[in-house]
Amino acid sequence: MKFSALPVVALLSMGAAPPPKLPTPADILATAKPAEWQPVDPADLMLIELGNGDRVAIMLAPAFAPAHVANIRALIRTRWFDGSAISRVQDNYVVQWGQSDDKVPPQDLGKPLPAEYDRAAAGLPLVPLPYRDTFAPKAGYSGAFPVAMDKGRAWMAHCYGIVGVGRGLSPDTGNGGELYAVIGQAPRHLDRNIALVGRVLDGFDKMTALPRGTGPLGFYEKAEQRFPIRRVTLAADMPAGARPAYEWLRPESASFAKWLHLRANRHDDFFIRPAGAVDLCNALPPVRAAKPARAQGD
Amino acid sequence: MKFSALPVVALLSMGAAPPPKLPTPADILATAKPAEWQPVDPADLMLIELGNGDRVAIMLAPAFAPAHVANIRALIRTRWFDGSAISRVQDNYVVQWGQSDDKVPPQDLGKPLPAEYDRAAAGLPLVPLPYRDTFAPKAGYSGAFPVAMDKGRAWMAHCYGIVGVGRGLSPDTGNGGELYAVIGQAPRHLDRNIALVGRVLDGFDKMTALPRGTGPLGFYEKAEQRFPIRRVTLAADMPAGARPAYEWLRPESASFAKWLHLRANRHDDFFIRPAGAVDLCNALPPVRAAKPARAQGD
Repeated sequence: MKFSALPVVALLSMGAAPPPKLPTPADILATAKPAEWQPVDPADLMLIELGNGDRVAIMLAPAFAPAHVANIRALIRTRWFDGSAISRVQDNYVVQWGQSDDKVPPQDLGKPLPAEYDRAAAGLPLVPLPYRDTFAPKAGYSGAFPVAMDKGRAWMAHCYGIVGVGRGLSPDTGNGGELYAVIGQAPRHLDRNIALVGRVLDGFDKMTALPRGTGPLGFYEKAEQRFPIRRVTLAADMPAGARPAYEWLRPESASFAKWLHLRANRHDDFFIRPAGAVDLCNALPPVRAAKPARAQGD
Repeated sequence: MKFSALPVVALLSMGAAPPPKLPTPADILATAKPAEWQPVDPADLMLIELGNGDRVAIMLAPAFAPAHVANIRALIRTRWFDGSAISRVQDNYVVQWGQSDDKVPPQDLGKPLPAEYDRAAAGLPLVPLPYRDTFAPKAGYSGAFPVAMDKGRAWMAHCYGIVGVGRGLSPDTGNGGELYAVIGQAPRHLDRNIALVGRVLDGFDKMTALPRGTGPLGFYEKAEQRFPIRRVTLAADMPAGARPAYEWLRPESASFAKWLHLRANRHDDFFIRPAGAVDLCNALPPVRAAKPARAQGD
């Protein structure tokens, strides 16, 4: 009754050779070569420590929103996010966090930034997804991120776990001091309307399982419902030996191509009819924890 | 910094007439005619009372899986689900509930049912979605359900909140005694591999916000982590005056067509660039609570 967890019952007739067993997507990941995995740059690894000690790891995406990512790094270093909170959880939409609205970022970090909602497609490596996308003529992956492209422009897609910058009604009112992550069916209608700055790599279930807010747009109605964030750190600012480390399967790799094909054409014992396709948001480049890089002199 | 909740700042030059304000999707719902809303049949309305008193309402879909829905109605009436539990919450995938694996449904209700994974397209009304679907040449809505079609066959799509029947590895091992609902990016690769039997209409956030299970496939590892289900009832079995009632916006209605177009082409003040499309799973026919129908003689 549990799907896909049961042992296979052998129903083959005696003497017949069993059909060759095709690999599963998990088999491909287990056998991918070390060089096919790309380490996350510690300067892009944002670590959120929640009030209960749980950790959420986010990879920042300077190729998509360089000014926003630079500002977020600077905000982290001023300790802007320490003592902040998750203030909004709207079911099938977003989790949002930051300081309360009356707080202003220090120095000039509260300045509105340029509206980095898309960028030139030229110069952005793309491994195209060989299936139809509903929203753009071309879609695929660049690094660990989902991307759509049209008419010479490229943008990150609002998939589950993708992180964006909260803003007001004017396009250039975000600064990265308030962030959100997608927790439901991809709200792709937000694509090119908001600066997307990263992807949650680990611990996201600690955010997605929070109680939904009962106020308008899923905001918590009472201050005590807000879920505390103790501290936010960049991995680059930690001692090299103490840094958590992650790596993603490079979309250019042979293993990614195999994995993607098997995700679209499932042969696991549970499946009867392969879909023949996969949605952009359901095949983000796989991520795993890695051994931290050794510091020089170790 | 909260997105879309801020007042519009008037930047119009003095004397210029403001541009005509286009309606939002919410405006369309607020002004739809009563006849455009279709009441949910109480025989199809499955009400789950959780251990903490929260309620989840599910609309069953006999047009898609008649044998499974008939079995689920019979299981409900034998009180099969009373005292059962949510046993699995896998992030970005499914919530699953039922009795423990060693319990067997009473009478002949544990018999495997035919694999109702798709059906003849003929005879199923469909309002087509005018945008590309990644998985099928044709997609749209039938009643309140998302549907895909290909080569004369039709099936319900695995969207957020759609309910299916847990099964083992053989296709015909499900009976409806164990159910799941989708809680993440639509796992459309499951389409046509499982019997889909309904859609959550209300209270889903009480399931989606549960802690994720830490065992394989998101099963809870300890019995005490399982989230209790107190009672499951069909609305048809309640006194007419006490029944909760829901209605959906008929996809054939003029208001649905307007709503769908506006979902795909957002003009709300927050939006800068409309997407020009919407995903099948992001525009399910809207549902709302309704006044219960008066019983005869009331």
